[in-house]
Amino acid sequence: MRDLLGGKGANLAEMTNLGLPVPPGFTITTDACRSYLATGSVPASLDEEITQYLSDVENAMGKKLGDASDPLLVSVRSGAKFSMPGMMETVLNIGLNDTSVNGLAQQSGNERFAWDSYRRLIQMFGKTVQDIDGDLFADALQKMQDEKGYSGDLDMTSEDLRELVDEYKKIVREQTGKEFPQDPREQMNQAIEAVFRSWNTERAVIYRRRERIPDELGTAVNICTMVFGNMGDTSGTGVCFTRDPSTGHSGVYGDYLVNAQGEDVVAGIRNTLTLADLENIDKGSYDELRDIMEKLEKHYHDLCDIEFTIQQKKLWMLQTRVGKRTPAAAFRVASQLVDEGLITMDEAVTRVTGAQLQSLLFPQFNTKQAGEPVSIGVPASPGAAVGEIVLNNEQAVERTQAGASVILVRSETNPDDLAGMVAASGVLTARGGKTSHAAVVARGMGRCCVVGAEDLIVDEDAGTVYVKSADRTFTAGDVISIDGTSGYIYEGEVAVSDSPVMTYIAEGLEAGLAAADDAETQELVRAVDRIMQHADAKARLGVQANADNPEDAQRARDFGAQGIGLCRTEHMFLGERRQLVERVILAANDEERQKAFDELEPLQREDFYGIFKAMDALPVTVRLIDPPLHEFLPDMVHLEAQAAIAVATNTPLSDYDATMLEAVRANQERNPMLGLRGVRLGLKIPGLIAVQIRAIAEAAASLKAEGYDPRPQIMVPLIGSYRELQIVREQAENIIAGVAQDKGVDLTIPIGNMMEIPRASLTADEIAEESDFFSFGTNDMTQMTWGFSRDDVEQEFFSDYFERGIFQVSPFESIDEKGVGAMVEIGVERGRRTKPELHCGVCGEHGGDPASIHFFDAIGIDYVSCSPFRVPVARLEAGRAALGNESSRA
Amino acid sequence: MRDLLGGKGANLAEMTNLGLPVPPGFTITTDACRSYLATGSVPASLDEEITQYLSDVENAMGKKLGDASDPLLVSVRSGAKFSMPGMMETVLNIGLNDTSVNGLAQQSGNERFAWDSYRRLIQMFGKTVQDIDGDLFADALQKMQDEKGYSGDLDMTSEDLRELVDEYKKIVREQTGKEFPQDPREQMNQAIEAVFRSWNTERAVIYRRRERIPDELGTAVNICTMVFGNMGDTSGTGVCFTRDPSTGHSGVYGDYLVNAQGEDVVAGIRNTLTLADLENIDKGSYDELRDIMEKLEKHYHDLCDIEFTIQQKKLWMLQTRVGKRTPAAAFRVASQLVDEGLITMDEAVTRVTGAQLQSLLFPQFNTKQAGEPVSIGVPASPGAAVGEIVLNNEQAVERTQAGASVILVRSETNPDDLAGMVAASGVLTARGGKTSHAAVVARGMGRCCVVGAEDLIVDEDAGTVYVKSADRTFTAGDVISIDGTSGYIYEGEVAVSDSPVMTYIAEGLEAGLAAADDAETQELVRAVDRIMQHADAKARLGVQANADNPEDAQRARDFGAQGIGLCRTEHMFLGERRQLVERVILAANDEERQKAFDELEPLQREDFYGIFKAMDALPVTVRLIDPPLHEFLPDMVHLEAQAAIAVATNTPLSDYDATMLEAVRANQERNPMLGLRGVRLGLKIPGLIAVQIRAIAEAAASLKAEGYDPRPQIMVPLIGSYRELQIVREQAENIIAGVAQDKGVDLTIPIGNMMEIPRASLTADEIAEESDFFSFGTNDMTQMTWGFSRDDVEQEFFSDYFERGIFQVSPFESIDEKGVGAMVEIGVERGRRTKPELHCGVCGEHGGDPASIHFFDAIGIDYVSCSPFRVPVARLEAGRAALGNESSRA
Repeated sequence: MRDLLGGKGANLAEMTNLGLPVPPGFTITTDACRSYLATGSVPASLDEEITQYLSDVENAMGKKLGDASDPLLVSVRSGAKFSMPGMMETVLNIGLNDTSVNGLAQQSGNERFAWDSYRRLIQMFGKTVQDIDGDLFADALQKMQDEKGYSGDLDMTSEDLRELVDEYKKIVREQTGKEFPQDPREQMNQAIEAVFRSWNTERAVIYRRRERIPDELGTAVNICTMVFGNMGDTSGTGVCFTRDPSTGHSGVYGDYLVNAQGEDVVAGIRNTLTLADLENIDKGSYDELRDIMEKLEKHYHDLCDIEFTIQQKKLWMLQTRVGKRTPAAAFRVASQLVDEGLITMDEAVTRVTGAQLQSLLFPQFNTKQAGEPVSIGVPASPGAAVGEIVLNNEQAVERTQAGASVILVRSETNPDDLAGMVAASGVLTARGGKTSHAAVVARGMGRCCVVGAEDLIVDEDAGTVYVKSADRTFTAGDVISIDGTSGYIYEGEVAVSDSPVMTYIAEGLEAGLAAADDAETQELVRAVDRIMQHADAKARLGVQANADNPEDAQRARDFGAQGIGLCRTEHMFLGERRQLVERVILAANDEERQKAFDELEPLQREDFYGIFKAMDALPVTVRLIDPPLHEFLPDMVHLEAQAAIAVATNTPLSDYDATMLEAVRANQERNPMLGLRGVRLGLKIPGLIAVQIRAIAEAAASLKAEGYDPRPQIMVPLIGSYRELQIVREQAENIIAGVAQDKGVDLTIPIGNMMEIPRASLTADEIAEESDFFSFGTNDMTQMTWGFSRDDVEQEFFSDYFERGIFQVSPFESIDEKGVGAMVEIGVERGRRTKPELHCGVCGEHGGDPASIHFFDAIGIDYVSCSPFRVPVARLEAGRAALGNESSRA
Repeated sequence: MRDLLGGKGANLAEMTNLGLPVPPGFTITTDACRSYLATGSVPASLDEEITQYLSDVENAMGKKLGDASDPLLVSVRSGAKFSMPGMMETVLNIGLNDTSVNGLAQQSGNERFAWDSYRRLIQMFGKTVQDIDGDLFADALQKMQDEKGYSGDLDMTSEDLRELVDEYKKIVREQTGKEFPQDPREQMNQAIEAVFRSWNTERAVIYRRRERIPDELGTAVNICTMVFGNMGDTSGTGVCFTRDPSTGHSGVYGDYLVNAQGEDVVAGIRNTLTLADLENIDKGSYDELRDIMEKLEKHYHDLCDIEFTIQQKKLWMLQTRVGKRTPAAAFRVASQLVDEGLITMDEAVTRVTGAQLQSLLFPQFNTKQAGEPVSIGVPASPGAAVGEIVLNNEQAVERTQAGASVILVRSETNPDDLAGMVAASGVLTARGGKTSHAAVVARGMGRCCVVGAEDLIVDEDAGTVYVKSADRTFTAGDVISIDGTSGYIYEGEVAVSDSPVMTYIAEGLEAGLAAADDAETQELVRAVDRIMQHADAKARLGVQANADNPEDAQRARDFGAQGIGLCRTEHMFLGERRQLVERVILAANDEERQKAFDELEPLQREDFYGIFKAMDALPVTVRLIDPPLHEFLPDMVHLEAQAAIAVATNTPLSDYDATMLEAVRANQERNPMLGLRGVRLGLKIPGLIAVQIRAIAEAAASLKAEGYDPRPQIMVPLIGSYRELQIVREQAENIIAGVAQDKGVDLTIPIGNMMEIPRASLTADEIAEESDFFSFGTNDMTQMTWGFSRDDVEQEFFSDYFERGIFQVSPFESIDEKGVGAMVEIGVERGRRTKPELHCGVCGEHGGDPASIHFFDAIGIDYVSCSPFRVPVARLEAGRAALGNESSRA
């Protein structure tokens, strides 16, 4: 029905069918719009039908459109299937003209009201139907008030308004070359056609493109008898909810305004009464409304919001729809509706979203207490953090060990800042966007993070953070508070409240209930628990986590992850081990290199041991080292500058710097993203793959010997050809078999690969021959499929691309279904041509994005892997996806 | 038949069927091999069949295998469908043992021959069948010669050889633990199984992988009666061709060696006689051979080469196959065979290749005269160039204007070296590979080029080129010669001869004939002309050229290009215009920027005017500017170093350098290949697209007004989303309509796009809605699909990847059909879902690569665009592809 009548029309029709008091009216279907847009004119048959329906309305109301003594007035509103704020919405008071305005004055006993209605008609009609610049009307109104010394339009008398009507009609005449149409039916026809045409305005087209609303839907048009809440003290207007939109509790929630119209409630010109007050003012209407509210909840099986008007003690329903609510209310209402028998648990799961759940997980500032923020950045990872400013890793670790809570403030972060980020309560950077290193890593850790605060100048050497706009300098040790949800930065300490829902997720129901302050919050925790359990039971898509160390692995497990889908090894080559890696890179021969690897191996073995142990009996998918060599070397520009100075000042570089400069130059790449990394690096540097495989195998063997059940899987990054994987597999299988024999244990370690290069998807049938599982790295796949590097383009042109309607959302945030998604789908499909049961996962930030999860479920992905803190969201969305995608899979 | 019998077996069978004197024998089919490889043993039925066939041979020869008094000896040879040099080939003399060796001695009356044959059997059998290290036999042979003071194996007596046989048998015993098999049938069986097994040796597997020969084919085994050319002066052996393989002329061409075996001819131990001499030695055999040669040519409809042996005045055919020939002979032979009615013109076109044509186009050194090269580099663009060394652009242009021929020698080249490369006869670089800037640009210009001569140290400041290996320093002005076909670098001037075929291609038949020195060369020019005309007539795929200036455009046209498929605009922003581009980049506001554009526009208009005029009535597809901004700015590392020195020495940078440093920093990208370039840049910088569109439209309008027929097409680079193209199209159409109105001409300029990003292929259905044509940029598509940047990876790991069998050829040279090719195919297919007649081209280096051209023809591409110098090759290959792909399209 929504296809033909649009959202508004369908709800009005439903209310009419329920026998509710809806002002008589009718809806012109989207079919008529499509026909108009195809032919450019209203079909004769439609004209006849309108005449017929209008006549029905006239009979029902006992009034005639535009009648001189008692005119029927109508509103004309657009109403598409999906709400489209960019479109023309409403023309009210159609049916008024130079004659009927007097009839309305007489009937209402309110001359000012009648002339005000008439001038509003001309103004709205002129602007939205006749396409006249709205400022002309506004200016004329303002000019008259200025001349008369009025402070607002309420000061205007009926005489003034009559004069203004003349002025408005003059504007219409000058702008269109015609008189304002006096024939009410002509007014109505023009308004209908204008609504039809509004479907194809540029802004509507762009809006649809962004929202992916099909162009061919067309809009419906709702014609409704006008009712007036401003006809004295027995009239009024209000909005209400069938239950409390913040708690979800049943009851009477709403606002009412005596002797007023709908716009007045929105504009807030007078204080509203509560709905309860209506009982005293007009018990008849109140009781009727309560009755209707109950009917609507039963009908829609959900919390509804309602717009109504009382015209001289007669209640009219103007609109209803499923009501917006807070995240907490969404969970409570869903659970309550199940208890009340109105919906099933399946439905309850689809009534809440991952985004709502997520917002319940983060601690939040008490904003009332916060005061004015001192600056703002880009909110990159939600939450609230309070702490001392620290400007580098060492300070962060030192102060945290001393018991302080710290905020790590940097120009931007890089992989070496990991220790500092782990130690800090929050991260603040002056540069970078939502997908900068700081943002991605912080989100991965669930650490509160604000990035790109360009107002800040961070001077690590001076130990200061200068806020340009405030001309204020902070020094290391000063306390600040940052809000990862809003991006605000506050001076000093702002109070933070914890989330009992988070406690529930991490520690279980009992702990969650214990953490809840009041019964309402306990109810919330129970509702979340109930819905999460059902989502888990229904989900087809598994949820794993990205984790690189035992702590994250344990957290992921606590949060319900079914394994580690991506365990990166990069950090195992950093920190104190960097000098070993330097030795590998600088090695003069295989022997020297192997010595460095031999020292590295036991360290890595220990890392893996801890992770496998934490994930006992669950899979841990280890990705072999991926980044290019130069990431392990000093910065080139800095070294080159040092070298230039050395030459210019005739003071030679140190041997170390000279050696490094040579290594940096040899390993420099113009496009490192497309360079020697991943499996290419592994094939190039003898021993690099072996050291990792051996560490994995030995860690697993040790655990087995101790009676654990380690389940490592080896994942080879950046595979573009089956042959690369074949070579690695041969090498890996030899090493694993050797370790198994040495340790006398049985070791089976699946070997699969990252699918992150378009060619991998295109040749997935060949690759599947060599691979035990696929894991789609949708971050890199997005970069390769679109041909842009997130480092480079996101800041430079994404905002422009949003504005121009090329993106509706960053393809790094939510999977680009038509492009990158299609690439993934090709990979899954071709891979399963070779191995019908091939296990396919997604590890990439998209694994935690709700829309992407639904897409992955639909194309048959087996599991997603996301940061531990996204695991609860992903679990919920996996359940919702299974319920939503069920029919398409059946 | 080749499928079952292999190449060698099939040819032997054909000769037998033709009634030619082939030594009796039989072929074990590839079926038997497949069965053996699947089960690991020779099927009993095969064993019986071998017995049967062997008995037929024995009857025919009147001898028995291994008979004590008159043994039948046989050879066992592998013979796959496609020649595989990595496999075991031959075991001769099977049937000899301790007894039959005496029979052979008696029968041949040559004891030494018999024992030499026996020791050869043990040696060959031990090495290839029993897998014994061949050095053991070679060492034993050498030791004996050393001990006896012999200078070679011809000094060895039959007694020596008898002793050596004992020694060899001892080696076999020690290495295998068994005696050398005395049962002749056992020898044969083992040899057959060894041939079967050789199919799966690692080197054979790798070889097949590289050559894309299917693993499941298997090899055939040829068993042939031994015949001996070394049985005295009435015996002999030879090879011959049915016509001259260098000229193609009919006649008797070959070599003959009296009293010798086949190996001796190859080893060149004695001077051979010509075949004509055979007429005097043994007229009977000679006449028979001439007769056979004629029969074979008639049968194979092509030049054949033949191996034969005369054993005591009896002629035996050992092998025949279609003979290799020089490129010139290939054209002549094809043309002659048509004249002789042996083949059709269609066949003639398929008998020659683009590679053969290309080698006829380049001038070549007279290598006999050249002497020793002084060094060597990577041959990057064929041809021969002689000239003075110049070390930079200015010198190159200056010396050329002064009338000198110059070789531009650089460490590596960059876009600013274009003027120097244009001026020079040849380009030589010390760094870079086959797809470095120098190589690509030089190939595009048809300029002789050698790159990556790592032996050279180029010191521009000192004006020297130091050759490390030769410890020799050249200075600017010294004359050198470089060979773009071999990579050799010579000191001084080496004589060069021009190519009349090139003259024909560029100026037509009359000019080509006039340029030919002799009748033979004239015949070649006529043959090329005839075949090219037929290829053009049959080609389905159009051939266009990449050209950026009127001279190249004219050349392309002369060479037969049907349009310009890629006219880059980059150079229109370089050279003296660089300062205007700098003004664009540094502009403080839109107005300043527009002023710079306004100065640029007439200059560009003039460029386009010249190109469109040269290509009157043919399409010119102009690609809007593609490279990232920093390519128009100074080098970052250099500027940063200057800045560092400025700070260290307290001497401030110039204002200009400081401004540039800021601009360079602002425009720096980590992965410029994936950054702000192509359409992204056009959408980002206001006016950048407009200036180019306006220049194109105005140039076209001027030409129209003058009565020409300009046919520009606008091509938008780096499209990833239909919406990008939509925005550009709207802007472009407005500008074009405006120019058309201003100039009062009718202007229709198709607007299409580059397909070079995977997402463009995946969403080609959407993009086609906005696009008038697709042009696949397969260079970038290769980079994106494989996820590597040619700048970075080609040098670093391609050689490794070749060795490991991951590539058989660089995907930048020949299209990677399974990956990049599939991506292109998806784009064509999806684009034509929207527009069934959508014109699809390829511009990229693959457009000039023969294998790629065949692929593009097969997937329905409409045209390729390549550098002007590749146009003739592409035309020929397009014709060949049409003839070759005809059946698959029918």
